[in-house]
Amino acid sequence: MSAARRVLVTGAGGLIGSNALAPLLALGYEVHTIGRHERSGPAGVHWHRLDLLEQDPAGLLRELSPSHLLHLAWYTEHGRFWESPENLAWVGATLRLLRRFAEAGGRRAAIAGTCAEYDWSTPREQLRDRAADGSPGSPERPSTLYGVAKRATRELAEAYADSAGVSVAWGRIFLLYGPGEDERRLLPSVARALLAGAEAPTTDGRQVRDLLHAADAGAAFAALLDSRVEGPVNVASGEGVPLANVIELIAEATGRPDLLRMGALPARAGDPPRLVADVRRLREEVGFTRHKPLAQGVAETVAWWREREREGVPGRAGV
Amino acid sequence: MSAARRVLVTGAGGLIGSNALAPLLALGYEVHTIGRHERSGPAGVHWHRLDLLEQDPAGLLRELSPSHLLHLAWYTEHGRFWESPENLAWVGATLRLLRRFAEAGGRRAAIAGTCAEYDWSTPREQLRDRAADGSPGSPERPSTLYGVAKRATRELAEAYADSAGVSVAWGRIFLLYGPGEDERRLLPSVARALLAGAEAPTTDGRQVRDLLHAADAGAAFAALLDSRVEGPVNVASGEGVPLANVIELIAEATGRPDLLRMGALPARAGDPPRLVADVRRLREEVGFTRHKPLAQGVAETVAWWREREREGVPGRAGV
Repeated sequence: MSAARRVLVTGAGGLIGSNALAPLLALGYEVHTIGRHERSGPAGVHWHRLDLLEQDPAGLLRELSPSHLLHLAWYTEHGRFWESPENLAWVGATLRLLRRFAEAGGRRAAIAGTCAEYDWSTPREQLRDRAADGSPGSPERPSTLYGVAKRATRELAEAYADSAGVSVAWGRIFLLYGPGEDERRLLPSVARALLAGAEAPTTDGRQVRDLLHAADAGAAFAALLDSRVEGPVNVASGEGVPLANVIELIAEATGRPDLLRMGALPARAGDPPRLVADVRRLREEVGFTRHKPLAQGVAETVAWWREREREGVPGRAGV
Repeated sequence: MSAARRVLVTGAGGLIGSNALAPLLALGYEVHTIGRHERSGPAGVHWHRLDLLEQDPAGLLRELSPSHLLHLAWYTEHGRFWESPENLAWVGATLRLLRRFAEAGGRRAAIAGTCAEYDWSTPREQLRDRAADGSPGSPERPSTLYGVAKRATRELAEAYADSAGVSVAWGRIFLLYGPGEDERRLLPSVARALLAGAEAPTTDGRQVRDLLHAADAGAAFAALLDSRVEGPVNVASGEGVPLANVIELIAEATGRPDLLRMGALPARAGDPPRLVADVRRLREEVGFTRHKPLAQGVAETVAWWREREREGVPGRAGV
C-alpha cells in the first residue's frame, strides 16, 4: 500500500488520540491506528492490534508504509506514571517505532512530549518552547522519571531524525481535561462527588495552571502533524488560571457549589505554583488556536459526567 | 542462587570487557557474562548466551540474582557507530537490562559512557566529569547520535536508579588501544602496514588525545564497579598526547619508521583539536591509576601484532 497522506496513530484510545482521529480524517488523511486493545472510533479509521512494548512493529510499518506518524502512546496510569519504570520501556518502544517508521519510508512525525520536561523549580511567566530566533526556550530540568524519559526521547528522536530524513515535531502537553479522562483526576473527582450529593474536599487551588480541553488537544496535534513545524511546541491554551477558579466552574456546573470544601486538603509537596505555556509557536507557526474556552469546556464536561452517571455507565479508569 | 559479590558482565568479548574479567575475579567476584556469542576467557567465568537486543533478560537475571552489573555492551562497529540507528536499540536494551537487574535485587552497576557526551566545540584544558563540590563538570553537548544516545541513557539510568535503589557509576571512555582492537583503528592500521613493509600514510597528527591501554581500561572499570563512586567518571589517562607522538612510537616499535608518511592524509573535518580527560575522580575517589605508560603499551601492542602476523592469524574486525 502507499498513499500520499497516510497516518499511523498510536494511543488512539487515549484522551488526545481519540480526539485526533476526526481532525485527521477532516484534513484528508487515511488514518490507521495501532494499539493493544480493540477500539472503536470514527468510520474510515483502520484499527490494527499490536503491542508496541512487546512486538517489533517493523512488519506492520512495511506493510502500511505510512507517510505520517502521530505517536501519543505512553504509560499514563494516574499518579503512578511519574516514577514508574514503565517510562523506560516506553523510551525503547518509541525509539524502535520511530526507526521502523523511518525505515518504511515515513517522513513526518509528531510525538507527545510534556511540560514536565521544563525546569519547574523557578517561577516564571510562561514556559517557552523555543525562542523566535530558534534558540532554546525555557530551561529544561525534569524532576521526575517521566519528565527525564520524555526529554531523553526527544533528544534521541531529533538526533536520529536528522540523519534519517524524518521531520519531527514534539508537542508538549500541559494540563488536559475532557470527557473520558481518568476518574481520579481533578474535574471528574470533584464533579462526580458533587453530582452524587457528596462533599468535595480540594486543596486551596492557588496553583496556576494551563488547561486545554481534550478536543482542542486532539485537533492541535492533528494540525501540528500537518504542519512543517519542527522541535518542541507547547500544546496548551496559553492562559494561566488558578485551580480555584477551575474548581468553582466545576462546582457551578454541577449545581451544588454548597458542597465544595475548598482548602480542606493540604497542598501537595513540591507542587509548582505556576505552569503556564507560551503558545506563540502553536498559534503563529502551526496556526492553531483553541476552540473551547475554559468555562464552556468545563460545563460540557460536567454535563458529560452527569449524563454518564445517569446512565449508570461503569467508570473508565486509566484513560 | 545468591552471592554477596556476583557480577554480571556484558560486552565481555570486547576490548574493555575481556580485560575486566581477570581484575573482577581478583577482587573476589563470582563472574557471569552474557552475550550473543560463545566466548572463552579466564577459568572461573560463567558464560551465558543471550542477545540483549532481541531477548528480555528478566529470566536470567532472576536466576542469577547478581549483586553487581558491569554493562559494556553497545554497537561499536568501526566508523559506523557514530550515527547508526543501532544506537537507539542499545538505549532500549540498556534501560531494560538495568531495570531487570534492579528488579532481581541488584544494587550496584557501572556502565560504559563516552567522551562523546561532552561538548567538543570549545577547546579547553581537560574535560571534567564532575567538579569537586559535586556540581556538574564540563558542558555536555554531544554532536553525534552515539553521544546523544549515551548521554540520554545516563540521565535515564541515574533517574531510574534513584527510585530503584541502585547505585550507578558511569565510566566515560576516551581513546583506547591494545591487543585485539579493530584493524581499522589507528595503531593496527599503521603497525600492520609498516610490519608488512608497506608505506603508512597518516594525518599530520596534531590532534591531542588521551590514550589508555585496554588492560588499564578493564582494570579501571573493575575498580570503578567495586567502589562507591556514583555518576560520571572519566576512564582515561589524564595525559594529552599529540597523535603524531603516538604514530612515531608505533613506527619505532615496528622498526620501519622510514616508511611512515605522516601528513599524507588530510585531517578529518570536524575532528576536535583536543580531547583530554581530567582524571581526578578516577584517581582520588576510585583510587585507580594506570599501570602501562603509553610508550610501553604501544610497544607491547605492536609486538602483539607482529606475533599475530607471523602466525598468520586472520584479522579480527569489529572488536
